[in-house]
Amino acid sequence: MRSEFQFINDMKSRYDLRRVGDDCAVLPKDDKTDLLITSDMLVEEVDFRLDWSNPEQIGHKCLAVSLSDIAAMGGTARFAMLSIAVVENLWKGDLLDRFYEGWNLLAAEFGVELIGGDISSTSGPLTVDSTVIGEVPRGQALLRAGARPGDAIFVTGSLGGAAGGLQLLLRGQHGSSENAQKLLERQLTPRPELLAANQLRTHGLATAAIDLSDGLSSDLMHICEASGVGAEIDARSLPIEPALKEFFSAEECIELALNGGEDLRLLFTGDAERISAFGLAGVTQIGTVTSRSGRIELLDRGELRPISAAGYRHF
Amino acid sequence: MRSEFQFINDMKSRYDLRRVGDDCAVLPKDDKTDLLITSDMLVEEVDFRLDWSNPEQIGHKCLAVSLSDIAAMGGTARFAMLSIAVVENLWKGDLLDRFYEGWNLLAAEFGVELIGGDISSTSGPLTVDSTVIGEVPRGQALLRAGARPGDAIFVTGSLGGAAGGLQLLLRGQHGSSENAQKLLERQLTPRPELLAANQLRTHGLATAAIDLSDGLSSDLMHICEASGVGAEIDARSLPIEPALKEFFSAEECIELALNGGEDLRLLFTGDAERISAFGLAGVTQIGTVTSRSGRIELLDRGELRPISAAGYRHF
Repeated sequence: MRSEFQFINDMKSRYDLRRVGDDCAVLPKDDKTDLLITSDMLVEEVDFRLDWSNPEQIGHKCLAVSLSDIAAMGGTARFAMLSIAVVENLWKGDLLDRFYEGWNLLAAEFGVELIGGDISSTSGPLTVDSTVIGEVPRGQALLRAGARPGDAIFVTGSLGGAAGGLQLLLRGQHGSSENAQKLLERQLTPRPELLAANQLRTHGLATAAIDLSDGLSSDLMHICEASGVGAEIDARSLPIEPALKEFFSAEECIELALNGGEDLRLLFTGDAERISAFGLAGVTQIGTVTSRSGRIELLDRGELRPISAAGYRHF
Repeated sequence: MRSEFQFINDMKSRYDLRRVGDDCAVLPKDDKTDLLITSDMLVEEVDFRLDWSNPEQIGHKCLAVSLSDIAAMGGTARFAMLSIAVVENLWKGDLLDRFYEGWNLLAAEFGVELIGGDISSTSGPLTVDSTVIGEVPRGQALLRAGARPGDAIFVTGSLGGAAGGLQLLLRGQHGSSENAQKLLERQLTPRPELLAANQLRTHGLATAAIDLSDGLSSDLMHICEASGVGAEIDARSLPIEPALKEFFSAEECIELALNGGEDLRLLFTGDAERISAFGLAGVTQIGTVTSRSGRIELLDRGELRPISAAGYRHF
């Protein structure tokens, strides 16, 4: 069965869709500015569960994933649209009011204004399409293409926390330790890296960037494919979310860091020395861009082995 | 139970959402141009049925409803985003390829470029969120507010055809007469009035405008509320879709014309003499704007009676 990525690539070539394929589409606005626009469809039981999240958290997450796409392009978020399909029994309660309350808290923090959308009834799962419009100085959007052999590969923050939180929820017995709370927070109310992204873009530090939504291996593969390069990752350098260690083995932690989705961290490439010298807080070098196009290799216990893009797929 | 319109108005005032509430949001682009943006959520069994439409027709309709919102503001459509949630068994077939084929035919006709979107799995109905971005000369977007007492009220084309087509489909025994085909076409592949809208805007003919999506009575009420006016409609002047007469009584035809949704015609107000003198093709005066704020009255067989906004509501 074809994956959604294959389908999108088919459509791109069939209809010559040149603006499709990065975290956001880039549109010319005026002499100084480009617009960024991104949409994310979030579906109950796929992206969130009503017995795991309260409505405010769902509102937060629906906006956060789109803000993260704006961050991946180095932009500033400005406006948003929200389309929601909801069953009648949820409509009757206060779910939507609380959803917007959570949405609005995050929107206010980043100066995002709700400008439209749609509401529909449905017989099925709560479904939200979140569209965010941002801005970036003309021609300066960070793209997936642009990574060059020899560039260093960096991530912001820690890895695997969101996927670890999901595992705890699936197990249904996570207790209430500080570490459990930390992982649940990473899963339920992830924070987009708009500030770090803005610094990267302002100072011209990144040659390519993407946000970690599907998982490190998948998202790194998107950069490799767009840039025509490969990548080598050092397992020891992965900034594994410390809270994971209470619940998962060392091997599981690496698996979560490599293939767990929804961290909403930034993955970017650039000159190792310049970036180190700049001293961005909370940024870790995890590997190097290679010329072995489309190939991601993991250096683990002295051995270099190829790994596949194994993040989340809908199909 | 509150309607979706009440909910949106609540949100508007609670969060001071000044750009919400017309057919599109208007954003400044540059010195000469404003951007228009609109989203429509279409849900299987609510907005379309897979046993009534082929996938190409669904693709057409999903774009048409959003293009119609751009038309309502007098704009030119430029770009589109498509987010789709689909169950696995439909994903496996060619439904989505055919959906895009139908979508693309209409997009190509109006010069619309697909620039992004999202694909998700779902356990429920096929759900599509269609976002279209258009442009309009700065400050010239046609708004719902602006109708003045004494203005004439006009519609483009005929009324009730889409709702009549829906009735035939619900009855399941529409035969294949030319009239039945005409009504099914109005329901399944409605055409947005971008060209007429562009003429209205270019020549400054409309004081207010909206597209007929919920139904004439509802959409006229939106203009009345936004403009702080009332309206008087003459039943005899309603341009009832001629094909309806094969299947519906005179009374049913008026009901379909007043309250049937999805015609995607333009409803607009303006100076009767100027508009008549201009000679727009296929435009009919159906009534007059009054100062009786929030009140729509129907002149029917010599009697003037108030009518309520009775178009389609999700909730």
